[in-house]
Order: sequence, then structure tokens, then C-alpha cells
Amino acid sequence: MQTNIHRVWIEWGDADPARIVFYPRYFAWFDAGTRHLFVNAGLPLPEIFDEHGVVGIPIAEANAKFLAPSKFGDELEVHSGVSEWSDRYFILSHKVYNAGVLCVDGWERRVWAAPHPDKPDRLKALPVPDVVRAALS
Amino acid sequence: MQTNIHRVWIEWGDADPARIVFYPRYFAWFDAGTRHLFVNAGLPLPEIFDEHGVVGIPIAEANAKFLAPSKFGDELEVHSGVSEWSDRYFILSHKVYNAGVLCVDGWERRVWAAPHPDKPDRLKALPVPDVVRAALS
Amino acid sequence: MQTNIHRVWIEWGDADPARIVFYPRYFAWFDAGTRHLFVNAGLPLPEIFDEHGVVGIPIAEANAKFLAPSKFGDELEVHSGVSEWSDRYFILSHKVYNAGVLCVDGWERRVWAAPHPDKPDRLKALPVPDVVRAALS
Amino acid sequence: MQTNIHRVWIEWGDADPARIVFYPRYFAWFDAGTRHLFVNAGLPLPEIFDEHGVVGIPIAEANAKFLAPSKFGDELEVHSGVSEWSDRYFILSHKVYNAGVLCVDGWERRVWAAPHPDKPDRLKALPVPDVVRAALS
Repeated sequence: MQTNIHRVWIEWGDADPARIVFYPRYFAWFDAGTRHLFVNAGLPLPEIFDEHGVVGIPIAEANAKFLAPSKFGDELEVHSGVSEWSDRYFILSHKVYNAGVLCVDGWERRVWAAPHPDKPDRLKALPVPDVVRAALS
Repeated sequence: MQTNIHRVWIEWGDADPARIVFYPRYFAWFDAGTRHLFVNAGLPLPEIFDEHGVVGIPIAEANAKFLAPSKFGDELEVHSGVSEWSDRYFILSHKVYNAGVLCVDGWERRVWAAPHPDKPDRLKALPVPDVVRAALS
Repeated sequence: MQTNIHRVWIEWGDADPARIVFYPRYFAWFDAGTRHLFVNAGLPLPEIFDEHGVVGIPIAEANAKFLAPSKFGDELEVHSGVSEWSDRYFILSHKVYNAGVLCVDGWERRVWAAPHPDKPDRLKALPVPDVVRAALS
Repeated sequence: MQTNIHRVWIEWGDADPARIVFYPRYFAWFDAGTRHLFVNAGLPLPEIFDEHGVVGIPIAEANAKFLAPSKFGDELEVHSGVSEWSDRYFILSHKVYNAGVLCVDGWERRVWAAPHPDKPDRLKALPVPDVVRAALS
């Protein structure tokens, strides 16, 4: 599995009055981890979507277990990679480490989404093309 | 189950270049939904924590299924309530409706957390007091 | 001057480890105040831009004086209105009140921006149409 | 003037439906630029505040001129430094460059704030200590 490591320095505005990271911020870093994974695997966004006639990789489900808090000034590593491929979706694993300790363990389920052939406002999930899969595997 | 309805008007800054809500925002609205549920059930935060000697209700896990996108100017309803009680955690259900249609279906697992009696930097999960449980049930 | 009052309940994620609002949030509320001002004056966004052939009202400058802090659970009123019209820009005044006391005093300078006739990637500032000016005056 | 360069990669969630950075994000980067300036000048936050008996450097006023938009995937440099010292405040200059072009030109006015000797809920602006001033000049 191709893994991308995205470093995040926790800024003042990332932390809440309990002095720890406000949890929705981790999902923003998951989203960033996914995009950096693609870009760093030689799959520039959004050009890669144009090339394959898809509108993007919209999120279908997201999950995170919060194992330990982090605070202002801590430096995190977000390790991201595709952990599962299916014809209708793929799963991105995101593991966040603080000083080497796993502190958030999460995943995103996303779809490779083309415009729906019949319904103008809907999307249709397609299998991820082999060339994209190969670059991320 | 006591249910709180929190209305959210989607602002320009909530939406991303795909012109739909950037998904971490939904988790911020889950967090807000949880706090409004407590406050509107007569359990003011953070006073209720001081009263019971806890530090808060930290998040242990969060999950969301994204069923349909929403966009700038849409008005959402976030329906929040405690759907499960356990001695060591409780589950908050968050259902987001856009024009009456369920568009995001999520939950948070949180703990009623006191300072750990032996380890100064750790927290200890306690059962939620009956008076709090009653107000939310 | 047409004034819009936008109410904001300060959420947990709006406040920082000093337990007060993280100041960039006020600018997000200025932006929201501007959009609500237009919508509530009968000028729906973004339809009104399409109708007049402009791409929007991009920000050219923003300023805020922070007179007093606010904290989680406070309810703010953002009073927004156009305080100055010019051929090349207009100024929106944003005054934020907490329990009746002015706590943030700011403004935005914006332009009524059409695609530039000669340079494809640039915008051109136009005078705000009389019908829009009338609705906001 | 000691200048800190803080690099920012524009994430998907930083951009709005106009596909450019949502302007309040620049102020978050100003705030980050200020903190990185202190840390990188050997003035760790928040330890330096404890050492000098102050509560922090709260914002008194912020301003930005937006000269050119930036978009998802652009890499910015935020150049931050103290451009003016006064007995009651100091000014931080923040210049944001995109591919070498100045795109946002801003400043923050902040105070070196101690608890007020007479009024428990108020702060009192003090002159910045010489040792801090020297490190940043």
C-alpha cells in the first residue's frame, strides 16, 4: 500500500477551550491526507479527474476513533493510504501519530464518481481505473 | 429520547470548490448539536461538568454517512439525541435533514470523563449520573 | 442605511485555548453578515450576480478592531450595512454586539466585479447598479 | 526586522465555491505567522508568557488588503515580522506571496497583556520586555 505522510503543526485556531484539538479538524486533515496521497503518487488533482471524466472522489462515509488528545504546538503525522478497493467505493485509512504514538485512527469511504448518464443532478459510482489503482497500490 | 433540533444556514465559507459543504463541517455541527441538546435539556455547559466533578464529555469516536450533498444557502436541521447509554460511554445520534430529506446520518461516542484518581494526565470514564440521563431520555 | 442583524451563537469550535473567540471567526461572520444583508434585502445570491453579469462581490480589504472578547455560549448580534458607495468599491460596516455592548467594530471593502473585457483571468470593478444600491440604502 | 517565512499549502477546505481562498483563512495564517515568528526567534509560546507574567498577546486590530486570489493547491509564503513597537502595542506585518507575487498585504496590532492589577476581568497593556523586543528586532 502506497502511504503518504502529511505533517501537521497544530495551530492555535485548531485547539478548543479544553486546550486540545477540536475533533472536526482531524477530518479536515484526513481530507488533506487523501489529496496529498494522490498528488504525491503522481496523480495531480483535479487534472486527473478531468482526464478520466469524473467529477471527483466524494466522501460517502467517514469514521475516526480518538485515542489520545493533542494540543497547540504539537506536530502530527497523518499516514494515509488506500486500504481497500471495491467496484463501487474505496477505503482510505488515516492514522494520526503524535510523537510516534497513534492518537487518531480513522478512515474515509469514497467513490470514483462520474455524472449519472440519465439523471442530470446525480452521480454514478464507477470502478477506479487500473492506472489510478496501480499508482496507489 | 429527548431530541434537539439545531438549525444551520449553510454559509459561503462552509462550502468548498465543488460548491457543496466541506464534510468536516458536519462534524462541527454534530458537536454543536450535542452541546445544544444538553443546554436545551436544562443542563448548562460547562456548569454541569463542574457540578458533577467531570472535565467534560470528550469524543471517543465519530462516524457519518453522507447520503446527499448540500450547498450554500441551504438550511439544514440537525436532529440530535442520545440513542444508547452504557456504563463507560454514550452514543449521540445526529441526523441532518435538508428540506425534509435525510442527507447525513451520523453518531458520536462520548464519555463522561473525570480526572483519573491515580494518573494526573489521564481521564477516567464514569457512568453518566441519573439526573443527567433522566434529562436526556 | 439598510441594516441586517445576524445572530451568532458562539460554538465550542469557535473558541480557542484562551477560551475566547479565535479572531478570524469574526471575519467569517462579517462575510456571512454581508450575504444575509443582500438576501434579506430581496437580493438573492448568487442569482443577483447572474442577472447583472457579474461574478460576485470579492473582498478588497477587511479590517476589525477587537474591543472586548466573547466566549463559548455567548450570543452575538452582527449589524451589517453599506456605509459608503463609490464608483469602484463599496464599504460594508459590521458591528458586533455582545449583550448590547459593541465588542468588534469592523468593515469590508468589496467590489462589484465583472469579467475583464480584455484580460480573461482578471476582473473589472463596475459601479453597483442603481437597483441594488436602492435596495441596500 | 526579524522575518519569519511560514509556508502554507492551500487545502481543499480553505477554498470556497468561487474556487479561491475564503478570506478569513488569511487571518488564521496571520495568527499562525505571528506564533511561528515567536517560536522561531527562540521565544516558545506559551512558556514565554508565563515567564513574563502576561496572559498573551491578544489581538487589538487586524487588517488585510487582498490584491490577488489564490486557489486550491497553490503554495503560499507568509512573511511575518514586527514592523512597529510602541509602549502600548506592537504591529506585526504579514505579507503573503504566491509564486513570488504579493497577493495579500496585512497587519495585526497586538498588546503585551498582563492581568489588570485592580479589575479582575480586565487586561492591562504593558511595554514588551527588552529581551523579547531584541529577539524580534
